[in-house]
Amino acid sequence: MNRNDVTEKIISTKVLKGIKWEAVAKKLGQSKEWTTALCLGQMTASPEQAKLLGKIFGLTVEEQKWLQVVPYKGSLPTPVPTDPLIYRWYEIVSVYGSTIKELIHEEFGDGIMSAIDFSMDIQRQADPKGDRVNVVLSGKFLPYKTY
Amino acid sequence: MNRNDVTEKIISTKVLKGIKWEAVAKKLGQSKEWTTALCLGQMTASPEQAKLLGKIFGLTVEEQKWLQVVPYKGSLPTPVPTDPLIYRWYEIVSVYGSTIKELIHEEFGDGIMSAIDFSMDIQRQADPKGDRVNVVLSGKFLPYKTY
Amino acid sequence: MNRNDVTEKIISTKVLKGIKWEAVAKKLGQSKEWTTALCLGQMTASPEQAKLLGKIFGLTVEEQKWLQVVPYKGSLPTPVPTDPLIYRWYEIVSVYGSTIKELIHEEFGDGIMSAIDFSMDIQRQADPKGDRVNVVLSGKFLPYKTY
Amino acid sequence: MNRNDVTEKIISTKVLKGIKWEAVAKKLGQSKEWTTALCLGQMTASPEQAKLLGKIFGLTVEEQKWLQVVPYKGSLPTPVPTDPLIYRWYEIVSVYGSTIKELIHEEFGDGIMSAIDFSMDIQRQADPKGDRVNVVLSGKFLPYKTY
Amino acid sequence: MNRNDVTEKIISTKVLKGIKWEAVAKKLGQSKEWTTALCLGQMTASPEQAKLLGKIFGLTVEEQKWLQVVPYKGSLPTPVPTDPLIYRWYEIVSVYGSTIKELIHEEFGDGIMSAIDFSMDIQRQADPKGDRVNVVLSGKFLPYKTY
Amino acid sequence: MNRNDVTEKIISTKVLKGIKWEAVAKKLGQSKEWTTALCLGQMTASPEQAKLLGKIFGLTVEEQKWLQVVPYKGSLPTPVPTDPLIYRWYEIVSVYGSTIKELIHEEFGDGIMSAIDFSMDIQRQADPKGDRVNVVLSGKFLPYKTY
Amino acid sequence: MNRNDVTEKIISTKVLKGIKWEAVAKKLGQSKEWTTALCLGQMTASPEQAKLLGKIFGLTVEEQKWLQVVPYKGSLPTPVPTDPLIYRWYEIVSVYGSTIKELIHEEFGDGIMSAIDFSMDIQRQADPKGDRVNVVLSGKFLPYKTY
Amino acid sequence: MNRNDVTEKIISTKVLKGIKWEAVAKKLGQSKEWTTALCLGQMTASPEQAKLLGKIFGLTVEEQKWLQVVPYKGSLPTPVPTDPLIYRWYEIVSVYGSTIKELIHEEFGDGIMSAIDFSMDIQRQADPKGDRVNVVLSGKFLPYKTY
Amino acid sequence: MNRNDVTEKIISTKVLKGIKWEAVAKKLGQSKEWTTALCLGQMTASPEQAKLLGKIFGLTVEEQKWLQVVPYKGSLPTPVPTDPLIYRWYEIVSVYGSTIKELIHEEFGDGIMSAIDFSMDIQRQADPKGDRVNVVLSGKFLPYKTY
Amino acid sequence: MNRNDVTEKIISTKVLKGIKWEAVAKKLGQSKEWTTALCLGQMTASPEQAKLLGKIFGLTVEEQKWLQVVPYKGSLPTPVPTDPLIYRWYEIVSVYGSTIKELIHEEFGDGIMSAIDFSMDIQRQADPKGDRVNVVLSGKFLPYKTY
Repeated sequence: MNRNDVTEKIISTKVLKGIKWEAVAKKLGQSKEWTTALCLGQMTASPEQAKLLGKIFGLTVEEQKWLQVVPYKGSLPTPVPTDPLIYRWYEIVSVYGSTIKELIHEEFGDGIMSAIDFSMDIQRQADPKGDRVNVVLSGKFLPYKTY
Repeated sequence: MNRNDVTEKIISTKVLKGIKWEAVAKKLGQSKEWTTALCLGQMTASPEQAKLLGKIFGLTVEEQKWLQVVPYKGSLPTPVPTDPLIYRWYEIVSVYGSTIKELIHEEFGDGIMSAIDFSMDIQRQADPKGDRVNVVLSGKFLPYKTY
Repeated sequence: MNRNDVTEKIISTKVLKGIKWEAVAKKLGQSKEWTTALCLGQMTASPEQAKLLGKIFGLTVEEQKWLQVVPYKGSLPTPVPTDPLIYRWYEIVSVYGSTIKELIHEEFGDGIMSAIDFSMDIQRQADPKGDRVNVVLSGKFLPYKTY
Repeated sequence: MNRNDVTEKIISTKVLKGIKWEAVAKKLGQSKEWTTALCLGQMTASPEQAKLLGKIFGLTVEEQKWLQVVPYKGSLPTPVPTDPLIYRWYEIVSVYGSTIKELIHEEFGDGIMSAIDFSMDIQRQADPKGDRVNVVLSGKFLPYKTY
Repeated sequence: MNRNDVTEKIISTKVLKGIKWEAVAKKLGQSKEWTTALCLGQMTASPEQAKLLGKIFGLTVEEQKWLQVVPYKGSLPTPVPTDPLIYRWYEIVSVYGSTIKELIHEEFGDGIMSAIDFSMDIQRQADPKGDRVNVVLSGKFLPYKTY
Repeated sequence: MNRNDVTEKIISTKVLKGIKWEAVAKKLGQSKEWTTALCLGQMTASPEQAKLLGKIFGLTVEEQKWLQVVPYKGSLPTPVPTDPLIYRWYEIVSVYGSTIKELIHEEFGDGIMSAIDFSMDIQRQADPKGDRVNVVLSGKFLPYKTY
Repeated sequence: MNRNDVTEKIISTKVLKGIKWEAVAKKLGQSKEWTTALCLGQMTASPEQAKLLGKIFGLTVEEQKWLQVVPYKGSLPTPVPTDPLIYRWYEIVSVYGSTIKELIHEEFGDGIMSAIDFSMDIQRQADPKGDRVNVVLSGKFLPYKTY
Repeated sequence: MNRNDVTEKIISTKVLKGIKWEAVAKKLGQSKEWTTALCLGQMTASPEQAKLLGKIFGLTVEEQKWLQVVPYKGSLPTPVPTDPLIYRWYEIVSVYGSTIKELIHEEFGDGIMSAIDFSMDIQRQADPKGDRVNVVLSGKFLPYKTY
Repeated sequence: MNRNDVTEKIISTKVLKGIKWEAVAKKLGQSKEWTTALCLGQMTASPEQAKLLGKIFGLTVEEQKWLQVVPYKGSLPTPVPTDPLIYRWYEIVSVYGSTIKELIHEEFGDGIMSAIDFSMDIQRQADPKGDRVNVVLSGKFLPYKTY
Repeated sequence: MNRNDVTEKIISTKVLKGIKWEAVAKKLGQSKEWTTALCLGQMTASPEQAKLLGKIFGLTVEEQKWLQVVPYKGSLPTPVPTDPLIYRWYEIVSVYGSTIKELIHEEFGDGIMSAIDFSMDIQRQADPKGDRVNVVLSGKFLPYKTY
């Protein structure tokens, strides 16, 4: 058994029972973004969170233990994603990557926006011309220092 | 001559004269995100915008014409970016890609978040533990339809 | 169980029973192009469509539920397809890609032809020198806008 | 000198003089699709066509000779195109590739749709919800035969 | 079950029973080249051919049906083949590719040698310095036409 | 200066003067296949051959010396060729590769068909349904031996 | 002009004048590791540092300005490095990568060792069996947090 | 059975029983770094070490024998690692690779730092601004010699 | 069943019974290099050799038959090997490849050193500074000829 | 100027003057293998060796200095070499790689054959059936040690 097996079981159960990620998140008291990433095998659960997920998805004790092990991260099967929704995000990095780099450096100097001390919030924004997906990314700026 | 030559000249002039992207954006009356992408060879200028940029960066009439040609987009030299700042964005797509997909589908059904009918806003968020980079991405949801 | 398992079962049953995609499409009241893409794991079924496919291919309730889950899209095993029929399409993109880009931009300006708000129609065109495959692709033009 | 040099000169001249591909095509008496592919270094000109293009773009005799040499085809710099407009076409092949294969085989049996005995027609289709790009692809069906 | 399963069964049975491809071809009344390609999952059988192969290799009715389904072609596990015999053919394409292109264009003009309307014949040629493999490839020339 | 420079000069001169490969081959007294490969930078000339080519293409003494240096072989810019004519040959290796392997081993046992002790002959074969390209490949069989 | 040009000039001057990185570092009052990375185009100089480097390597004012621009980082020409010294480091990541991951997670929980808030120290360690390279890497631990 | 099966069993047992790598290392009397690498299938055990691991992880005699077989090394599934913790190490090689090369050559001349005659020590360094990961790498310098 | 299954069984049995490749080679009366390559699925056995190996490794008649089938060669899972021992050989080809090419051409003219009419001998060479691996490669020179 | 420029000048001069690597090696008093690798930009010269090469190839003082700088090694333009002579060496690694690994481990235990403390000797071996290339590789065995 490994973490992938647990992820697959969670997804299968979700499909069968028609569970919503948002509902899972509420039971855990965490954001739907972090909770979904956890269920998809990208984050690490505390023992209490693992127990709660165990109830929701009918996981054994061993499966709950796997949720507490730090996973090998990376959720995509290919370096350039083939799925159209995910590809659009890759395209944003490809087309706007140099722009993002220039503007963060112009504001903050040399360094990066952390992908670890990081959070994400995805919301529907109603719009008469067609609703929009609004995403807020927030990452700590980490400066390169001289030494 | 091609668009890359114009991009390189813009960047060279920016370094030499110490021009800020934000200042360029104000003169154009556009966001700093779109303006920078334009100057870096990813967007297309109107004749007026090209003329304005021509003044700021000392571009010839031919160079201004190239700014009005739709460019071959994609601003990164490798499929997986090596620059740490840009890589962190690639990592967000890699680690959170399946999460983003799940949550947008849960909210909107099958479809994508457009990377064309799209805007981006990058801001500094003061934080006593270390300032944060706040980025808002807004893309129209486009549904797959049956036919 | 996952969507691939359902796709494989559909294909196996199709081969065994000699079912035609066109016949499946008629029962669903959809185009043969969209219906085939659905059966091959690229589109998402409504509950009614899933039920109908369940009857045609002998799918369990669980398998019908998987048809209603948005799939991870991308139907080819390699970035450059090895199958001669599919490669010819890749070749069209490779040889005519820059031409398509130039002509759409000449007509519409900067933007893309949507692959989401999109439909496809494949027909036989009788021809004394050898029948032809006629394909009509229709995608909404989405303009890049300044912001 | 090689064909690429001629292609670059044609494109540069086009930008400088504001020439339209459609106008070039009319002067040649060919479709705009084939004419653009020729100018972008993918097709081969007859001596008369080369002479005509020579006048339009101010090409030397040597440059006109290069237009009559069969080029090494393939107009994209990477196997997976980074430009969003061209990528959408690659995505169509990726998502619908297996569907196209199934439906052509269902109609014609084993074989391919030729990318050589092939023509393409790109048109604007007015639509109140947003104009559409309509593309007709026509390729001769070539059957595999036993031997 | 899929076509690969049938291919593997055919190869296993061939090894176990010591069947020769040439003998199979004679029973089918086809060339050994086409017959082997069929058995290796690259070509499509008629119902009669499938039945005959069924007898030779002990295939079930379902397996015979799979032989009549157009396969996803491409018989090699990597883009650059590792097997020395097959690599030599790849090397011929690599070293002589530009030569082949030049000479076919010199004789026929712009177009291709078809790999679909195509046959291949492999023979031993006795030679006192060491026997030779003689291969005749015959493909219809397909011209690019203007339109 | 290197061999590529000489190859480019040969090709440029050929285009400008309208020289045929077959005519060059006759002057050298060699096959048109080997001669073309030599001119395209894949084979090595004797001093006499280099001198003859020097006359035909107006090469300096230094350029003639480069023709006598064994080149770094491989005439294609990408592992999977994008040019349609050359791709068809790659496709033959991809689709028929396992067949070729099986039939040569069935006839000769374990070993390879040499791509060094090798010759190639390309001819037009008149055919009322459309002329064909006929290619004869002849390579010495080299057996693996036990030791 | 770009940063690469400045890096190449620095390296050329270093070779010609026989300058040592350690000596450059002392003049800057920084570690030899950071200083070398700066000179090789991976770090960003302050105006004073750029001026100092300008004296050492004879850089123009424009070249000094480029040293103050945040560079596009990544100092290796291929994803898997071919140089034996650098490959050994890649091999350490390949062979020990999962070990490093396990042990940092065992000690710190889920998170990463920063490559930004990071320093490196390379020293010779005398050893009678052959001197050793001793490298100390120090990176801040950044925990993933729930949100 | 192969070494991977043994590695997976060790990891599964570790998760289920909550064993620490450091505790395993103490029982073996080796460093935690080498011990973890051994358990993850990168190093080779002596018969005594295999026996001890057999007790700790409940391995059969056959499984213990596999621990004594030199493994095919390389612990990562992709050339560029997707896991953020391991990627940071890859990034260090990418950004600092040329720096490391320059400084080792400046001190030692041409040669490499061995990744075989090599050891690694990972420690927590308390720091009020956030604890740090401290890693010491020690590798013998191996000079290239003339011959 | 296929050749890989037989290879895996041979390796498993070797580990379990503690068989040495050299001992297998002696029983076959062949070199240890060729014998090991045969057992690892790279060479083809005669019926007698297959029978002998059948006794040593407890192979069934069917498994012995597979040993007599010419295998698809290539023993490494990735184009650039990750295992340090094998990588060093790849590095020799990378660093010394152009040297090997120059020296063989200087001595023999244009052609190759055969990897088919080839043998290899690996020996320990005692050395007070540390024993050495001595490898002798012997391959027939095959000249390119004009035709 | 960089090391590549010096390498190209050396090769150009060699072609023009008809210098032999073996003659260069004799003047340096080193093996032809090491000397050729040095001239091709893979090894590092002492000041005396650089001076000697300066005389032979007419190098300036600056060019001689570049010969004394440790180069970025790796002499091939692609990971899988296209040149037939060099490919045969890659094929040996591919086909015999697992064999080499097994036999060195059987004799020496876990470790590698050094590619640094390494020498190579290439000789013609007369043979009535066709002369052979004989290559002796000698590399120190470096054991992995526990720690």
